[in-house]
Amino acid sequence: MPMTAPASNPLLSDRDVDFQLHEVLDTESLCRLPAFADHSRETFTLFLDSTRRFARDVLAPTYRLMDAEPPSFRDGRVHTHPLMRALYPQLVELGLLSATRPVEVGGQQLPLTVYSLASAYLMAANLSAYAFIGLTAGAAHLIEAFGTPWLKDTLMAPMYSGEWTGTMALTEPQAGSSLADVRTRATPAEHGSYRISGSKIFISGGDQDFTQNVVHLTLARVDGAPPGTRGLSLFAIPARRLEGGRLVDNDVRVTGAIHKIGWKGIPSLALNYGEGGDCHGWLVGQEGKGLTHMFQMMNEARIMVGLNGVATASVAYQEALAYACNRPQGRLAWEKDAARPQRPIVEHADVRRMLLRQKTIVEGGLSLLAAAAWYADVAAHGATPEERERAGLLVDLLTPLAKTFPAEKGFEANTLAVQVHGGYGYSTEYLPEAWLRDQKLNSIHEGTTGIQGLDLLGRKVVAAGGAALRAFGEEVDATVERARQAGVDPAWGEALEKATRDVMELTLELGAAGMAGDVERMLRHSADYMELFSVLAVAWRWLAQAAAAREGLSRGLEGQEGRDFYEGKLAAAQYWLHTELPRVGLLVTLCRTGEDSYTRMKPGWF
Amino acid sequence: MPMTAPASNPLLSDRDVDFQLHEVLDTESLCRLPAFADHSRETFTLFLDSTRRFARDVLAPTYRLMDAEPPSFRDGRVHTHPLMRALYPQLVELGLLSATRPVEVGGQQLPLTVYSLASAYLMAANLSAYAFIGLTAGAAHLIEAFGTPWLKDTLMAPMYSGEWTGTMALTEPQAGSSLADVRTRATPAEHGSYRISGSKIFISGGDQDFTQNVVHLTLARVDGAPPGTRGLSLFAIPARRLEGGRLVDNDVRVTGAIHKIGWKGIPSLALNYGEGGDCHGWLVGQEGKGLTHMFQMMNEARIMVGLNGVATASVAYQEALAYACNRPQGRLAWEKDAARPQRPIVEHADVRRMLLRQKTIVEGGLSLLAAAAWYADVAAHGATPEERERAGLLVDLLTPLAKTFPAEKGFEANTLAVQVHGGYGYSTEYLPEAWLRDQKLNSIHEGTTGIQGLDLLGRKVVAAGGAALRAFGEEVDATVERARQAGVDPAWGEALEKATRDVMELTLELGAAGMAGDVERMLRHSADYMELFSVLAVAWRWLAQAAAAREGLSRGLEGQEGRDFYEGKLAAAQYWLHTELPRVGLLVTLCRTGEDSYTRMKPGWF
Repeated sequence: MPMTAPASNPLLSDRDVDFQLHEVLDTESLCRLPAFADHSRETFTLFLDSTRRFARDVLAPTYRLMDAEPPSFRDGRVHTHPLMRALYPQLVELGLLSATRPVEVGGQQLPLTVYSLASAYLMAANLSAYAFIGLTAGAAHLIEAFGTPWLKDTLMAPMYSGEWTGTMALTEPQAGSSLADVRTRATPAEHGSYRISGSKIFISGGDQDFTQNVVHLTLARVDGAPPGTRGLSLFAIPARRLEGGRLVDNDVRVTGAIHKIGWKGIPSLALNYGEGGDCHGWLVGQEGKGLTHMFQMMNEARIMVGLNGVATASVAYQEALAYACNRPQGRLAWEKDAARPQRPIVEHADVRRMLLRQKTIVEGGLSLLAAAAWYADVAAHGATPEERERAGLLVDLLTPLAKTFPAEKGFEANTLAVQVHGGYGYSTEYLPEAWLRDQKLNSIHEGTTGIQGLDLLGRKVVAAGGAALRAFGEEVDATVERARQAGVDPAWGEALEKATRDVMELTLELGAAGMAGDVERMLRHSADYMELFSVLAVAWRWLAQAAAAREGLSRGLEGQEGRDFYEGKLAAAQYWLHTELPRVGLLVTLCRTGEDSYTRMKPGWF
Repeated sequence: MPMTAPASNPLLSDRDVDFQLHEVLDTESLCRLPAFADHSRETFTLFLDSTRRFARDVLAPTYRLMDAEPPSFRDGRVHTHPLMRALYPQLVELGLLSATRPVEVGGQQLPLTVYSLASAYLMAANLSAYAFIGLTAGAAHLIEAFGTPWLKDTLMAPMYSGEWTGTMALTEPQAGSSLADVRTRATPAEHGSYRISGSKIFISGGDQDFTQNVVHLTLARVDGAPPGTRGLSLFAIPARRLEGGRLVDNDVRVTGAIHKIGWKGIPSLALNYGEGGDCHGWLVGQEGKGLTHMFQMMNEARIMVGLNGVATASVAYQEALAYACNRPQGRLAWEKDAARPQRPIVEHADVRRMLLRQKTIVEGGLSLLAAAAWYADVAAHGATPEERERAGLLVDLLTPLAKTFPAEKGFEANTLAVQVHGGYGYSTEYLPEAWLRDQKLNSIHEGTTGIQGLDLLGRKVVAAGGAALRAFGEEVDATVERARQAGVDPAWGEALEKATRDVMELTLELGAAGMAGDVERMLRHSADYMELFSVLAVAWRWLAQAAAAREGLSRGLEGQEGRDFYEGKLAAAQYWLHTELPRVGLLVTLCRTGEDSYTRMKPGWF
């Protein structure tokens, strides 16, 4: 019967994570900023190492068990996998809930750059277990940013301490991508609270049985508020509320569970508020600013989704690589002698193609995420207002890319990992199919790929009179210059600069169409635009990696293994710049022609 | 809670199937050939209609049940879903086992063109139930083609009659893509039989409990045979053999079941022959010609896999289309008034893009399969040896494309069908995720995508001194001329002709490298070559459809619905020729440059 999967999976390559942090980027230089002054490369490494170790030794072995036995919903309560009772406190103990938050709320104020690469190990090991942490941290952070001191004491503190968990409750049956249609109502009530009534769906972690409470950060509409998004306010709604010093039922009911195809360790639930007329919520921030507040957290949430995409592709890539090095099958096309021993499949060119494509997606994606996190750190804590503003524009611009590229191309990488396993990849005895199922969610949640395309082209690249796009061009120029100095093939830099110019010109044209009132024409090819900009941005990251690899090779003295690592980086950069980057020109032309086949299609024509 | 899926799904568009058969192709003209002389458009329609009706009314409702409750393996026997006991005789009753076979073996001698489009409905409705038919027909056909009269009486006849089922038993744990490594042994024994010993794996339908016997068409090696594929012979090995007029155990054991992620209605098994030293097999055809015999059936098997890819993409596309027309969500980008009612999502450009892309893959794929089946019919029954030979070259050339395009792009289409459903697509309450799981097998079984690429470039396009490729070029020219006469935009035909010329030139260059001994260089980009040739071949089919649509519009008098159908065809053709065809030039350049990133990669570089 089929072999089982290799017992140990590196999840991510430590060498690559260190390379991204300390060779492609100079993460230690963030410590010059006052916010990170207490940190150093050593504290970064301590945090990374403890997270990696936990991910490998404790979390990874729980993945298959939690995938096989999803939470059950009985008697109105959700029972998560029994392992979560032990895992959650350990995840809390690692400092994950508030790692990037300031000391005042119990945090370590680590750069997001460091935290996000560390958390990728946890996602690669068991994304569902980590998701409880991510959601709770996001919910607590919303109260930290916009809540009153009383809310911080009563609802935020128990989330950061790990006593309670949190959720983001946005979606309703009629309001998914279209949050303007949220109907959940909030009626002013006693003691500054609101009485809440309504229904939510697809609420991840909406109930569990390993802590005593869940706080739902919920979009709702105060009585009399206008329709659309500007009538939305943000509320904190605990499943159980404090009354007279003890927790009492707050009339939040689980009404159903979605049977998801992946992320099986965390439930996705339908919730009902106030069926018994006794559900209380508390306003977080300003009335009517619910979506604005939520969106201030959205960049971070979307970066975490992108990281999840990278992590889920990475764990499968590492597995496929190990399998390909160990599985003998066939001989090379020019070896006809069947008496020869078989070759490990990694020696077949097409298997190496599949592995290299996975590598370029995984490591190109990780590099894009690291850059986005870097700009987020500078946007939040940069030395000057100008530095912060510029970095803010860049993180805004990169976020839809950093969310979408790993979701879409990560799914392709996960598909290739299945393919490398042949017939075994099609069986549940091996894990690649599970990671493939997990990955599929990332193109759907936190804004679908279609929504991200509209966001990128309709908002981000035209923001601030094109300042974000110009800043991106400057970053590309700086990378091209670095690569040139490092001795990277100058043709690569030239190709990247040309593609960047083409994209900037195209953007001006499309933006002009929008300004002239033809929004349909401007946004018609938002999906193609997302695709070409993703390819471009990842090519930029591969050129940066090629530069760092050349720098590493020039330093010499790394031994064979070190040189192999850099040679692999250069071959992967070559692949992306030769195979993918030329697609940008083709897609620019397509967007420019205004090709109208699908906009002309009428429903009756299908 | 989530809505359930629409109750009725058309599986495939009847209008499109009729269009492919009678407007794009002139299938009735096959009746001029003696083999099909008893047939007419009316008999084709009778067969199609009864198959469609059965697929929709009987088979489709069983799909979800069989997906949810896979066969169980206990006490050494496999128990398939109880529904199969009633379904299998009904499938047999429809004449499916021998529809294309001659009257002498109980068949109807229908053209494969008609049979294959009819069977696509069955695959779309419940691919696992149909797979028992497809495998049995293939096994019986092998004995029909190469077996002795005694074998036909004793082992073929009960398969064609539906009393027994059959399998193809090729793969062994160490011999999947590499059949040269098959080890199962056959030792000459009494009465012309052979004593068989060995193990097989991934044997679809390798056991069941709805008929009394299973015949395994098995590759094995006669004692003393040379290593490699030329030492392989084909054997028929029944699970129970006839002895003294009754069935006795033939020492074939099920040793395990693969837990597949899709095709859940049919078991995939590990088998052991002759553990007790009492397994008998009978040679089919010539000793040492096992693989050759098997490959004479392989085109048909691969065309059926391609059809399955189309069918599985089609059923999901039809579901996504119905969903998109009924699901309200959001407003258009230039409608800011949240008080307006929401729009059905089909009105969002990006949703239409996803649907149109599915349509071009499904209907372009169906058209490619119909063409391949057409050439197979002419190859088998054409009027002259020249006509048969030319058609044979074309079906050989098209087979790897017809197998791979639906498997790879069909998977993309299935992924888009999930995406159109948003969060609901990620749940098992809706069927798109199930079809996505099903589709994944098609890039793996019957020769992986990598193997198909090597077959296309290493064998098919260079066959007969390039005669196959020249014949393909002539078919393209004829279609371009037809499109020109029909009034299709001449730029489309010119673009197709230019791309075809580019591909032919590239092929000559790569072929020359191979002839000069550099097989590595020739085959390095076989995956890219497969991709570019698939895009080209489907562009050819879309131009043929555009021509037929223009012809239909010129005939007039079809009413609004008829005109809508043709307009949709023209928009879809435009999409493929404007969006996909330009990629061919880029890929030709890539193959030509000899880009060597993944051939240079060493295992230690990853």
